[in-house]
Amino acid sequence: MNTWGNKLKLSIFGESHGPAVGIVIDGLPPGGPLDMDAVQAEMRRRAPGRDDTATARREGDMVEILSGLHDGRTTGAPLCAIVRNHDVRSGDYDAKLRPGHADWTALLKYKGFADRRGGGHFSGRLTAPLVFAGALAGQFLSRQGVRIKARMVRVGQTEDPDLMRGEILAAKADGDSVGGIVEAVATGVPGGLGDPFFASLESVAASLLFSIPAVKGVEFGDGFALAAMRGSQANDELCVEDVVDVEGEPHVEGSVEGGRIRARTNHNGGILGGITNGEPVVVRVAIKPTPSIARPQRSVDASTMGEVEITIKGRHDPCIVPRAVPVVEAALALSLLDCCLMAGVGAGPEAGPEAGACL
Amino acid sequence: MNTWGNKLKLSIFGESHGPAVGIVIDGLPPGGPLDMDAVQAEMRRRAPGRDDTATARREGDMVEILSGLHDGRTTGAPLCAIVRNHDVRSGDYDAKLRPGHADWTALLKYKGFADRRGGGHFSGRLTAPLVFAGALAGQFLSRQGVRIKARMVRVGQTEDPDLMRGEILAAKADGDSVGGIVEAVATGVPGGLGDPFFASLESVAASLLFSIPAVKGVEFGDGFALAAMRGSQANDELCVEDVVDVEGEPHVEGSVEGGRIRARTNHNGGILGGITNGEPVVVRVAIKPTPSIARPQRSVDASTMGEVEITIKGRHDPCIVPRAVPVVEAALALSLLDCCLMAGVGAGPEAGPEAGACL
Amino acid sequence: MNTWGNKLKLSIFGESHGPAVGIVIDGLPPGGPLDMDAVQAEMRRRAPGRDDTATARREGDMVEILSGLHDGRTTGAPLCAIVRNHDVRSGDYDAKLRPGHADWTALLKYKGFADRRGGGHFSGRLTAPLVFAGALAGQFLSRQGVRIKARMVRVGQTEDPDLMRGEILAAKADGDSVGGIVEAVATGVPGGLGDPFFASLESVAASLLFSIPAVKGVEFGDGFALAAMRGSQANDELCVEDVVDVEGEPHVEGSVEGGRIRARTNHNGGILGGITNGEPVVVRVAIKPTPSIARPQRSVDASTMGEVEITIKGRHDPCIVPRAVPVVEAALALSLLDCCLMAGVGAGPEAGPEAGACL
Amino acid sequence: MNTWGNKLKLSIFGESHGPAVGIVIDGLPPGGPLDMDAVQAEMRRRAPGRDDTATARREGDMVEILSGLHDGRTTGAPLCAIVRNHDVRSGDYDAKLRPGHADWTALLKYKGFADRRGGGHFSGRLTAPLVFAGALAGQFLSRQGVRIKARMVRVGQTEDPDLMRGEILAAKADGDSVGGIVEAVATGVPGGLGDPFFASLESVAASLLFSIPAVKGVEFGDGFALAAMRGSQANDELCVEDVVDVEGEPHVEGSVEGGRIRARTNHNGGILGGITNGEPVVVRVAIKPTPSIARPQRSVDASTMGEVEITIKGRHDPCIVPRAVPVVEAALALSLLDCCLMAGVGAGPEAGPEAGACL
Repeated sequence: MNTWGNKLKLSIFGESHGPAVGIVIDGLPPGGPLDMDAVQAEMRRRAPGRDDTATARREGDMVEILSGLHDGRTTGAPLCAIVRNHDVRSGDYDAKLRPGHADWTALLKYKGFADRRGGGHFSGRLTAPLVFAGALAGQFLSRQGVRIKARMVRVGQTEDPDLMRGEILAAKADGDSVGGIVEAVATGVPGGLGDPFFASLESVAASLLFSIPAVKGVEFGDGFALAAMRGSQANDELCVEDVVDVEGEPHVEGSVEGGRIRARTNHNGGILGGITNGEPVVVRVAIKPTPSIARPQRSVDASTMGEVEITIKGRHDPCIVPRAVPVVEAALALSLLDCCLMAGVGAGPEAGPEAGACL
Repeated sequence: MNTWGNKLKLSIFGESHGPAVGIVIDGLPPGGPLDMDAVQAEMRRRAPGRDDTATARREGDMVEILSGLHDGRTTGAPLCAIVRNHDVRSGDYDAKLRPGHADWTALLKYKGFADRRGGGHFSGRLTAPLVFAGALAGQFLSRQGVRIKARMVRVGQTEDPDLMRGEILAAKADGDSVGGIVEAVATGVPGGLGDPFFASLESVAASLLFSIPAVKGVEFGDGFALAAMRGSQANDELCVEDVVDVEGEPHVEGSVEGGRIRARTNHNGGILGGITNGEPVVVRVAIKPTPSIARPQRSVDASTMGEVEITIKGRHDPCIVPRAVPVVEAALALSLLDCCLMAGVGAGPEAGPEAGACL
Repeated sequence: MNTWGNKLKLSIFGESHGPAVGIVIDGLPPGGPLDMDAVQAEMRRRAPGRDDTATARREGDMVEILSGLHDGRTTGAPLCAIVRNHDVRSGDYDAKLRPGHADWTALLKYKGFADRRGGGHFSGRLTAPLVFAGALAGQFLSRQGVRIKARMVRVGQTEDPDLMRGEILAAKADGDSVGGIVEAVATGVPGGLGDPFFASLESVAASLLFSIPAVKGVEFGDGFALAAMRGSQANDELCVEDVVDVEGEPHVEGSVEGGRIRARTNHNGGILGGITNGEPVVVRVAIKPTPSIARPQRSVDASTMGEVEITIKGRHDPCIVPRAVPVVEAALALSLLDCCLMAGVGAGPEAGPEAGACL
Repeated sequence: MNTWGNKLKLSIFGESHGPAVGIVIDGLPPGGPLDMDAVQAEMRRRAPGRDDTATARREGDMVEILSGLHDGRTTGAPLCAIVRNHDVRSGDYDAKLRPGHADWTALLKYKGFADRRGGGHFSGRLTAPLVFAGALAGQFLSRQGVRIKARMVRVGQTEDPDLMRGEILAAKADGDSVGGIVEAVATGVPGGLGDPFFASLESVAASLLFSIPAVKGVEFGDGFALAAMRGSQANDELCVEDVVDVEGEPHVEGSVEGGRIRARTNHNGGILGGITNGEPVVVRVAIKPTPSIARPQRSVDASTMGEVEITIKGRHDPCIVPRAVPVVEAALALSLLDCCLMAGVGAGPEAGPEAGACL
């Protein structure tokens, strides 16, 4: 089912070489001003064709909004946005199954009826509408004081930012590709978001993060490293932080006169029992190497059921990790906004000039 | 929202020290025979009080089925099962926030109205109904040829099964606790399960796995290790396997006369593009150390907002990883059954003597 | 799927002659005090065995709450309530299909595996947990100023309340049964509840009302009578009503200093475009005659596929309309509460003594 | 929430005077051939501007499919279709609240941020994508032998088809409008569709039918007339019908050698206990008179909160009942297809030339 979310509902559609990719976003509060320049800047972070570490396919990724926006603000009705596909060369693909791709599983599921061109509905191009939705969600969240920032913490064998570009170009020179890890941090997150059990913030965010093509691992806080720890190391001890109520600033949620509970460390990544505690939410996402590589691989031709050697030509990213950074930010933003709306945070319509008259 | 699933719907309820914990399972095909002895055996694997590596709390964890079962078979109507709570000592808990627990976030979310006794709705005891549901799902899956088996692959500093018990007892002796990693493998999984994007098998399974208290990381196939690989290492090359049609055996899905596509390796853990390829599904789950430790910890008393030292008495597991093994199996079984039902695999009513008469 | 609702989720279970019927209610705000005496009074309105117009089956219908309630208040965690079945005489049922009942369709759907005893999961007894949930919802709504009241407006051939009892007893004397219409009115409903299109209040309420066994029609406002009207008759003209702000009373939503928009008539039943306008919500529900009648009927024996004559013995209501009155109230209450929670009305936790301390 | 359906998911979007209206349809089986000429013929039945009983607004209502279709067949991925808005005259609307319209409730809900032009998201124009989706669903259903046909059974004061046009023109001449009733019948419906309780076919269909603007009543079978009946009249007695197995024809579901259960009458409209019995599904829908009338009406100006007289100019239908006929067909088709897919009927991919090779 390609619908996601509880109070914020996403419905995504499109194929790599079809007319367009797009998304319907339902549940946005009315009255939210949309800064389209900032949105397009996010789109460009994800878009292909920026430099020699990415695919040469060039798409402006210009967003067209079909509904739900009026006079530059959300109306509260479903917002549909599409991105047209332009620079399409379908001739690059044939019937041989590309290892590491969904060609094989698409065949199992769709029995030969899938639109295989460019990966079809499985293409990373579907992340373009997700980045749009995330940018929009981020603007709602920033008005609540929430900021989200992701970065690469690993590319292949290196964790040093200065060496990552070299790692990618070396793989490219070898006709190969390389994976990596993206870490996202959200600050200013209200406490009390998420639910115990099935709608834990971890469940909500992971379900969206694992939707991103090539993601094979998700961890919160210290994640897998916690498995090697003792409780005395992993527990975040608590303290009381002085809170100074500044005139004109919103009162900090969860605080009382003179004090607010804080964690002394953040091994749990801002989430306890599935619910935010107000500390930064920290998530890391493992991204596998781009399956499309120039080297010859052993595969199967599904039309003849014969074993074949396949050499993928086309235009491909030697590493999609840099382009995945805004996608991970988007997924975290959408997860947090859904949980905010479920908790009633920022759910009310934003103030506007017209609202004053009779309401 | 404490409802999970697409065609198989779970609704879980209960508190650690309330009358009962339980689950409603909707969407089960009619006619499935239920082996209650096998179910109770699974319940015992999770139940507390088995040996000195676990909490001394003793619960028979006897399941009472209230609906949806008739003459030992599922009826197709919702099945509700409950487990009564018996051995309850509520005096063990007071108002100080226990580090690493959900006491703090429950306060933020429920504003003082949560049933805090024994962790309330956040308690690991809620995994008892999950194990029941998983055992039931496993029986449906096994009739489709699917087998699920989990095991500990790490406890604290060791990956050696022979040393794990020692690792736990050492932590216990120190008044401390220790985490670990559980790996689950499902074999015989039909190809074509799951959807691209929001309902990828990874999304579905992760949303349920992250519901389990203490889970902080989930990875499929080689997971985070893929981030350090090249595409030429991570891609699973394909081949054609001879298939011998044996009289009386079901035809293997995805095969044709004389051949069936197989992967030569399984770095992707049986999932490509969110959809199963018929290879074993492999998932690993990071479990943090039990937050309840005997050592004194710095914390906050929420009623006075004063900083305090807390020493947790009660009865607690120095390591919940052994008891988490059947819980992880359950979550994977439920995820696979939901995807099977969505795909129409095993969705039809099973054959039965009464069915023959007029249908 | 036996799950209903958007932010308020219901999951219902049970069979007429199984151990119990029950419901899980998820999404209730924490801190709501539950008046169990009032709840049981509602249960008794629906319960069988009250007088000679209803079935002689006697059930105390005592509710046992298994979770989600602590110290007499909702905790915010899922609330599960069950009603045990006691006075069960399964011998009353055999294999012949009873006309007007679900015996036939249960066979088509569940292939002989349904628990047929007493109508099984199709029994009107499933409305007992619904009435419980509705009574609970009604208590939340009444704290928002919403009141719901239903009454019979037709029984068989009469619309005169004084003659309804006679109509029922006449049918009973003939070994027959009779249908009727229940009208429910909700006052004090906040404006702005519901959504355009798929989650219109009419869609939400109708989906729940049509869940009630024997309901075959639902109309809002003037309903089917609107089909015969002109627009000039059906439109509700608007006016401005003076609003006096009384000290200590909540400000009326949708009002400004000195005025509040009102409808001069209420042909639309308080709903325009699927959304409440603050006028009373009016709904009418058609209930078919009880299918169980003493008269012989022509039917089929499913085990032999032979045509047979069937005479239903058992204990049955000659008219279920009186007992349906609290069920219709319950369904409307649950629909309104779900829409309130979606709109953020009454969603916040209610104030409590413990809440004051640190939040 | 503007998402509908269980296994077939609809997400609708658009405003009357925005760039486009559209729908995302998820869950369609792959391989279904789409007859676009037949779809456009359905679109024209709903489209405005056909004759003098309808609004003069002219829209080609040409459907553009953005995804989910390849080589004329569904791919199994989400299908998004849009209809551009062309003939838009936004100057026709001002700030006065039109009685009977959603202007008032949109203001209550969206606090002045709704796109009010032409009714915005509340416009009947949103039924265009619904008709598209219904036409597509109808083509899937027809391959299962299901046929759906709706007709007007009342317009204002007349039930005589020959007099309906006169009734509409008389209302138009008076500057007024008129309502009506549409009846839809589905034949060839498989038995066993729908669920007891919350997902009864009646609940599923009513939730969609009440989404259609102007619908105020829904009844199945004899509906409200059943309320006046005795059980002996309302019950549909059963018989056994001879079934002749014709070579090459599909075996009739629910039949055995030499016989198939049938109802002698159809007062229950093909549905018992929420589940289809194989008899024709019959539903009637009450449609209120178009609220836009040329006559002066008393209303309120929301910007000044003053009472005003309003005379609606614009272009409007004196009766939308004729245009509602294909919309009601669409809603019934979508409801039945969702229930078919849930029941596994027609859920498998349709056979195709490419499928043969390796699967």
